[in-house]
Amino acid sequence: MDVSRFGAKFLGHSGILQLMDDLGQAAQIPGVRMLGGGNPAQIPQVHAVLRQAMERVLDSDSAFERMVGYYSGPEGDASYREALARLFREECGWDVGPEHIALTNSSQTAFFYLFNLFAGTGPDGVSRRILLPLAPEYIGYADVGIEPEIFVSHRPQIEHLPERQFKYHVDFERLQVTEEIGAICVSRPTNPTGNVLTQEELSQLSHLARHHGIPLIVDNAYGAPFPEIIYTDPGLPWAPHMVLTMSLSKLGMPGVRTGIVVARPEIVRAVAAMNAILSLAPGNFGPALTLELVRSREVLRLCREVIRPHYRAKAEHALACIHQSLAGTDYHVHRPEGAFFVWLWFRNLPITAQELYQRLKEQGVVVVPGQHFFPGLAEEWRHKQECIRVSYAADPEVVREGFRIIGQEVRRAYGG
Amino acid sequence: MDVSRFGAKFLGHSGILQLMDDLGQAAQIPGVRMLGGGNPAQIPQVHAVLRQAMERVLDSDSAFERMVGYYSGPEGDASYREALARLFREECGWDVGPEHIALTNSSQTAFFYLFNLFAGTGPDGVSRRILLPLAPEYIGYADVGIEPEIFVSHRPQIEHLPERQFKYHVDFERLQVTEEIGAICVSRPTNPTGNVLTQEELSQLSHLARHHGIPLIVDNAYGAPFPEIIYTDPGLPWAPHMVLTMSLSKLGMPGVRTGIVVARPEIVRAVAAMNAILSLAPGNFGPALTLELVRSREVLRLCREVIRPHYRAKAEHALACIHQSLAGTDYHVHRPEGAFFVWLWFRNLPITAQELYQRLKEQGVVVVPGQHFFPGLAEEWRHKQECIRVSYAADPEVVREGFRIIGQEVRRAYGG
Repeated sequence: MDVSRFGAKFLGHSGILQLMDDLGQAAQIPGVRMLGGGNPAQIPQVHAVLRQAMERVLDSDSAFERMVGYYSGPEGDASYREALARLFREECGWDVGPEHIALTNSSQTAFFYLFNLFAGTGPDGVSRRILLPLAPEYIGYADVGIEPEIFVSHRPQIEHLPERQFKYHVDFERLQVTEEIGAICVSRPTNPTGNVLTQEELSQLSHLARHHGIPLIVDNAYGAPFPEIIYTDPGLPWAPHMVLTMSLSKLGMPGVRTGIVVARPEIVRAVAAMNAILSLAPGNFGPALTLELVRSREVLRLCREVIRPHYRAKAEHALACIHQSLAGTDYHVHRPEGAFFVWLWFRNLPITAQELYQRLKEQGVVVVPGQHFFPGLAEEWRHKQECIRVSYAADPEVVREGFRIIGQEVRRAYGG
Repeated sequence: MDVSRFGAKFLGHSGILQLMDDLGQAAQIPGVRMLGGGNPAQIPQVHAVLRQAMERVLDSDSAFERMVGYYSGPEGDASYREALARLFREECGWDVGPEHIALTNSSQTAFFYLFNLFAGTGPDGVSRRILLPLAPEYIGYADVGIEPEIFVSHRPQIEHLPERQFKYHVDFERLQVTEEIGAICVSRPTNPTGNVLTQEELSQLSHLARHHGIPLIVDNAYGAPFPEIIYTDPGLPWAPHMVLTMSLSKLGMPGVRTGIVVARPEIVRAVAAMNAILSLAPGNFGPALTLELVRSREVLRLCREVIRPHYRAKAEHALACIHQSLAGTDYHVHRPEGAFFVWLWFRNLPITAQELYQRLKEQGVVVVPGQHFFPGLAEEWRHKQECIRVSYAADPEVVREGFRIIGQEVRRAYGG
């Protein structure tokens, strides 16, 4: 089959696609402890609220028919964008209206748009890239470039903390915003580490972006004002040189595929145009299902009273399991400040993270090996092979048993 | 703002994006007669069936929670693909299983994938294009190429029929499948003309594709087995060198954004991989809402007893309005064989279709000017400027009044 260069990478089973296949197959194994995926937890109170919301849509004379029977405009449903803008203005102080908001069929889709808008060869012949100031960074970015090699990233500084915890920081001394940088992007909270960049780091990155006349993209999939799965200072400003992406997925709705882009109108119009060409319009399900939750601000109550406490308790449970099952090995855990993953670092592990992943899979535990989370980091660094990402969104017993087996295999790998 | 070449076309307000903006704005004008869009009709019996389907999802213990709370695999929901495969096997005789089916977030998204898979510069350095055997062809294809100029198309032969009707045919004498052709694509029924390629034409195209070892893509958005908005022979085979795309939109569900690709497993895997990278997974709303309708085959009953007769009656109504309002001018109308548009040709019209579009808009009637429906047809051809597409999905009174005004403006343009 003759295909394009663009298409060829979707045929080859390399890198992330192979990993996804592998994770998908592993998830089918009966009894497997799936700690590898990004699926949010199934929280009964969230289910109840969403079920009620759907019933309200059906109780209305025409809301269900509008949801199903019409294309929205390419920028997404107008009432929903108006309701979001109001929430953002009143709750976060962002100076935005509906013209600052576009919906997409997932925030992953938004990243495909934004990265290929700001990176790649320009009409001026200049080849631009996306600067990821801190690796590890989100695995899902890795393959979205239409052109190859669109990322530049840098090693972080590592701050050691009590109780075998550590925290990555942006190494501003290494950071260079050269002519070839088209945008800066960070996920906050960071997937895979649960890191939350400090206000100081964020403000320095914002300054750098504004100074160089390029956007600062903040992947806010786990951040404020929703789902606010963030255990430290959630504050996030918006300014015209910033692009925030958000999602309904981590609120408990990955099946609806709704992404939200908050940006200045010029960028919003480009995102809408991309929607028009790539999918005519974004879907109506997520917007219609959650419109009243946004208008009434119940979405915020749900995040603060249910979702965040749920994951916070799970993070503490995960930490307790980790300390118990890994005691005596040279393990380190990134301080869980948000999202629902722990990032474990096994210093000087004699085997690679890939080998550890394989061994764990054979024992019925699925995690994600760390080396996939360094898009754009060209240099050799053994640390890439010493880490794994473990989701703690699953049931506590599954998580506990998972960490018990991780402890067992890591001990074996260290020769203990 | 510095952007990539790929991104630049989404900033410029040119061609189709400008048209879409214009149509979007026109649709907001109070009292406008919107005969320009592709929105399906709002049919009460369809609404009732979909409402019931949604209530069934909510009545189940967990179907709603599965719909909302989980990512599907990148190829789309497994139960739905199984149910579709069974329907296709048993009702259409296609030799397919779930491994032949991928879901996408709209068939527009499927076209972005497929065209950029089979066209563009290959790893071998060869620059390939998509052959559209017959122009006019669907406006939505025009801008999806990551690389510029990915289409080659050809003028049709025109067969004149009684009652000022005509029908386009593929001009096989002009058709050349050169080395640069990566795939052949036709929409059937054709948007914008309502043309249904004959079995003979389809079989010749299929033979050409197989002979050259390239796929024949059939855009089946209006075709069989659903929505089957087709008033002539709906028969459509499937074979491993064919790629069929389908959609839930014209069944009355444009808001759910569900596209369906039927192809050999190698192509299905590539589509799934593109889903993974561009959106992680397709949405669950359409599949969950219609799963039981597909399993029970009620979807076919709905198409045959409700949807097709609905549009067929509207097509006849539109024809009657046309003959009444345009009598005395040199108008011709493509035989409406399917979809829900009429394609009007005003021979030797002294003004361009664009000018007619503008004048109609001033009179509160929105149509789509014909010149946008010739992607890949480089040669000059006055015919491109002599046609308009008019949707007859709206209420009969709106359609009647629309054609009255079209008649008035066309007469004026002819100087009558």
